Amino acid sequence: MQTAYNIVPIGIVHNKDDDVRVEVYPQYEKALLGIEQFSHILVLYWFDENDTPEGRSILQVHPCSNPKNPLTGVFATHSPRRPNLIALTKCRIVAIDGTSITVDRIDAYDGSPVIDIKSYFPEEEAASDYRFPEWDRNKEG
Amino acid sequence: MQTAYNIVPIGIVHNKDDDVRVEVYPQYEKALLGIEQFSHILVLYWFDENDTPEGRSILQVHPCSNPKNPLTGVFATHSPRRPNLIALTKCRIVAIDGTSITVDRIDAYDGSPVIDIKSYFPEEEAASDYRFPEWDRNKEG
Repeated sequence: MQTAYNIVPIGIVHNKDDDVRVEVYPQYEKALLGIEQFSHILVLYWFDENDTPEGRSILQVHPCSNPKNPLTGVFATHSPRRPNLIALTKCRIVAIDGTSITVDRIDAYDGSPVIDIKSYFPEEEAASDYRFPEWDRNKEG
Repeated sequence: MQTAYNIVPIGIVHNKDDDVRVEVYPQYEKALLGIEQFSHILVLYWFDENDTPEGRSILQVHPCSNPKNPLTGVFATHSPRRPNLIALTKCRIVAIDGTSITVDRIDAYDGSPVIDIKSYFPEEEAASDYRFPEWDRNKEG
């Protein structure tokens, strides 16, 4: 049951000043064919700074690192504390130059390992189909 | 650069007849606190049936396994062929019983390893903000 799976970085995040890019390693260039047809991509990266047994054992957090928000299970959040350190973020493509995808913004630290990219299709349900809590998104504490 | 990261299953998909559930392993129960506040969750699972060096080396596919669709890089698709076999799907929560989350439907095979769950917040952009190709979603070939 406790089989483990292996993830390899397929690229790296650049996020410094005006340089906001997802750089895919050259050996994966073919995997980008047709990505220019999309306005947005989903970028999956690895919260590598938390990749310690302790970091991966935290199961509850105050969302948005804000103590005003109720203690919540990490599976009910997008917290960088979780058993498998997969981050998911949606980015708008600004430009593509070979294996380098400039995006509008990304919530990843500079140097974060990219582990997957998926094309983004907008949701089909109406906004009224969704229910979610109103957390305070100001970071504190 | 070719560091590898380790993923451990945090649960399993049940998808047989009327039993459509994401079952989280008991040691992660605390990570579910508050998930009932959401109508939808993102379920990340592992395409374990393709976890071979050959399966992970395929970089281009015809989307939806339909030869009518143009050859496309896997990063521009949600194909189960990709370097890191991470699947992402959105599910509506129907019921929660302890560590067992019944969902409306899931596009995963019965027995697929679940590797992460994230709460779902609906998108903030208008539908007109998105651009994407119109693939034929009928499965063929």
